[in-house]
Amino acid sequence: MNILEIIAKKRDKKELTKEEIEYFVKEYTKGTIADYQASALIMAIYINGMNEREAKDLSLSMAYSGDVLDLSELGDNIVDKHSTGGVGDKVSIILLPIIASLGIPVAKMSGRGLGFTGGTVDKLESIPGYRTNIPIDEFIENVKKIGISMIGQTLNLAPADKKLYALRDTVSCVESIPLIASSIMSKKIASGANKIVLDITVGKGAFMKTQENAQELAELMTKIGNLAGKEVICVFTKMDEPLGKAVGNSLEVKEAINFLKGFMPKDLKDVVFELGANMLKLAGFGEDLNKNKDMIIENIINGKAYEKLIQMVKNQGGDITYINDINKFEKAKYIIPVESKKNGIIKEINAEEVGKLACLLGAGRLKKEDEIDSSAGIVLNKKTGDYVKENEIIAYLHTNKEEIIEYAKNKILEIWKI
Amino acid sequence: MNILEIIAKKRDKKELTKEEIEYFVKEYTKGTIADYQASALIMAIYINGMNEREAKDLSLSMAYSGDVLDLSELGDNIVDKHSTGGVGDKVSIILLPIIASLGIPVAKMSGRGLGFTGGTVDKLESIPGYRTNIPIDEFIENVKKIGISMIGQTLNLAPADKKLYALRDTVSCVESIPLIASSIMSKKIASGANKIVLDITVGKGAFMKTQENAQELAELMTKIGNLAGKEVICVFTKMDEPLGKAVGNSLEVKEAINFLKGFMPKDLKDVVFELGANMLKLAGFGEDLNKNKDMIIENIINGKAYEKLIQMVKNQGGDITYINDINKFEKAKYIIPVESKKNGIIKEINAEEVGKLACLLGAGRLKKEDEIDSSAGIVLNKKTGDYVKENEIIAYLHTNKEEIIEYAKNKILEIWKI
Repeated sequence: MNILEIIAKKRDKKELTKEEIEYFVKEYTKGTIADYQASALIMAIYINGMNEREAKDLSLSMAYSGDVLDLSELGDNIVDKHSTGGVGDKVSIILLPIIASLGIPVAKMSGRGLGFTGGTVDKLESIPGYRTNIPIDEFIENVKKIGISMIGQTLNLAPADKKLYALRDTVSCVESIPLIASSIMSKKIASGANKIVLDITVGKGAFMKTQENAQELAELMTKIGNLAGKEVICVFTKMDEPLGKAVGNSLEVKEAINFLKGFMPKDLKDVVFELGANMLKLAGFGEDLNKNKDMIIENIINGKAYEKLIQMVKNQGGDITYINDINKFEKAKYIIPVESKKNGIIKEINAEEVGKLACLLGAGRLKKEDEIDSSAGIVLNKKTGDYVKENEIIAYLHTNKEEIIEYAKNKILEIWKI
Repeated sequence: MNILEIIAKKRDKKELTKEEIEYFVKEYTKGTIADYQASALIMAIYINGMNEREAKDLSLSMAYSGDVLDLSELGDNIVDKHSTGGVGDKVSIILLPIIASLGIPVAKMSGRGLGFTGGTVDKLESIPGYRTNIPIDEFIENVKKIGISMIGQTLNLAPADKKLYALRDTVSCVESIPLIASSIMSKKIASGANKIVLDITVGKGAFMKTQENAQELAELMTKIGNLAGKEVICVFTKMDEPLGKAVGNSLEVKEAINFLKGFMPKDLKDVVFELGANMLKLAGFGEDLNKNKDMIIENIINGKAYEKLIQMVKNQGGDITYINDINKFEKAKYIIPVESKKNGIIKEINAEEVGKLACLLGAGRLKKEDEIDSSAGIVLNKKTGDYVKENEIIAYLHTNKEEIIEYAKNKILEIWKI
C-alpha cells in the first residue's frame, strides 16, 4: 500500500478501503506521510466526498490514533453530549449537573476555545481553584464517588484528528461534511461513552449555515456512531444570535449558576431541556420527552441540580463560595453600557460577530498560546425581537483593555441591527 | 489576496484571476506559500480543471518565475521543437542540424532524462569533449557563427515549474492536462523561441495514452502559445514501441549519426520528416509539407545536414573523429544477443518497459543524482510487425553490469510479444 495510490483513488472518486484509511491515518500521525500529501488527499475528499463506511473508518482510525478512554467500570449507561459549537454556549455546565442529579454518571472531557467560540474548560477554570487537569484514575474515582466529573483533555485523544484539523484550517478544507463528522465522532469515540446526544447548531453563528447541511451532517454522524456501536441522537438548535445573555468565561459561568438557581433565559432553557430530555431518553428514562423535561425542571426547583454543581466544584478543588455568591467573581476593570441610538425592534444579532468582539475584549484566544481574560466579555441586555428605545442599554462591555472600548461600542451598534 | 481564498475558489470550481495565479506562483517560488497549500490547490486544479486563460496565465507566471532567454538578436524566426517524451527519441539530434543546414537559426536548450525516458543532453554528452554547459553569450555567439547550438539548461528556466512538477509527482497529480500543458509551455516560453512545433507522443510509451487526451493537450497548448504570442503547430506521433532501433545514450547518438548518413529506420524517418516539414512551414518555407520534406531529404543526401552536425560538435569542443567513425565510441563490456524462443510475428514491444529495462542496464537515472553509463542500452533487432524464427536475434543488451544480464534477457523475451 502506498499514499500515491490512495490519493489517486480518491482523486478519481473511488471508495477507499478500511485498510487504506487506517494506513493513511497511522502513517500521517507518525509523520511518514507528509503534510503536502495529506492536504492533497484532504482536498480530494472535500471535493469528491466519502461514503458512510469510509467516514466511519476514518473516525475509528483517528479515535484509535491515541488514547481511548475506558469507562466500562462506570457501567454501560454513559451518556455524552457534544455541540458543534456556538457563541455563549454554557449548556454543558448547566446540563451535566442536572443529568448527574438524576443518577446518570457523567464523565466529561471538554476542550478549550479557539477562534470565536468559547471552550467549556476555559469557562470552568474561571472558578478559582477548579482543577481541570486531573489524572484519569482520579477522574474515574470522582464519577464513582459523586456521579460527575468535568475535566479538560488530559488524555491524548485522537491526535490524528488534531493534526488533520490544523491542516484543514490552512488549506481551506474545514467545511466538508464527511471531514467534520469524522473529526467530531473520532473524539466522541475516544471519549468512551456508548450513548451520545449531538447538538447540531444551525445558523449564522454556527459552522452549519443551513438546515440542509445540518441534516446531512446529523445523518452522517448518526450513521458513523451506529457503525461504531454507539447510540446517537441528534438535536438541532438555532445559533443565529448568542445563547442566553452572557458571552465570556466567568460571565457565562455566572449565568449557568443563576440558571440552576431558577433564572432561565428562554432560548437557553429550550436548548438545555431539549438536549437533556434526549440524554434521559438514551439513558432509559423513556421515550416521552415532555415527561423527561418535567424531571429536569423538578431537579432544578428542588435544588438537586444546583447541589450537584456545588458537589462537583468542591470535589475538584474549586471555591464554592463563588458559586454561592457570584458577586465574588473578579470583575473587569471597565464595564461599559452601550446605548441604542434609535427606537425600533432588534431584527438581528450575529452570533459570530459577537463572539469575535468578545475575543477582542479579552475573552478568547486568537492563537493557541494566548492567555484568556476570564472576566472579559459581553452581556446582552436586549436580544433579537426586543423593542428598544433611544438611549436604552442594549449591551454591556466587560474588558480590561481601555484602548478597545470606543471601537467595541461602535461595533456593538453595528452588530445589533435595529 | 491570500492563498486560503485562492484555494477555496478553485475548490468550488471557480475561475482564478490572472493576479491570483501570479500571486500563487510568486509566493510559492519564494516559499511563503507552503507545499501543503500548493498541493491542495494542485489537487483542486486536477479535479476541477482550468480554462485556457487560466492555463495561459499559469504558464506565463511560471515562465517569468526565472530567467527568460532573449533570442531577439537572432531575429524573429526562431523555431523550437519539443516532444512530450518517448523512448529512443533521438529526433532533436537528427532534426536540428537538418533545420540549421537549411539556414534557420537553431538555439536549443534541452533537459536531462529522468525515469524511463532519456534526455537529449545526456545523449550529446556521450560524444567525448562535447560541452553542454556553456555560458549564454557563447551559446548565442555559436548560433550567430554557425547557425546552431545545442546545450543543457544553463539558465534558471521556470523554477516554479520545477518546484511544482516535483510536488505533483509526490501527490498523484501528474496526469492533468492543464498542468502538463502549463508546465511544457512555461519552459517553451522561457526558452525564447517565437515559433514552436510540439511533438505530442501518443501510446503505451507516452504520457498521453489515448488520441483524445493527446488532442485535448494539443488544443490547450496551442491556445496557451497563441495567447502568449507564439505560433504553435502540434504534430501527433505514435509512441507504442521505441522510436528507431537504439535505446541508450551513445547507442542513440550513433543511430542519429547514421541517420544523417542516410541510414533511416522507417518510423524514425516519419517522425523526423513530419516535425521538420512543420518547422519549415513555421519558418516561412511554405505550406506544402511534401515540398518541405523534399528539402529535408535533399540536405541529407547532399551531406549538408551531416556537415552541420560535424560543425556543431566541433564548435562545442566535441571530438569529431567519433562522428566520422562511430566505432570509436566506447562499447559496453557485455553485448548480449537475445534470441527468440519461438516462431511468429511480433505484435507488441512496450516502449515504457524497454525504457525501464534500459535504465536498469545503466542507461538512465532513477534519482537525479545517479550517474549515467553512456554505453549501456538496448538495440532492437526486430520490431513490431516483423516475422521472427526460433533462435533468431530479437535484441542486443549493452551493459557493464554482469549481474543483471539473466534477468534482462528474460525481460526482453517477456516484452517482445510474439
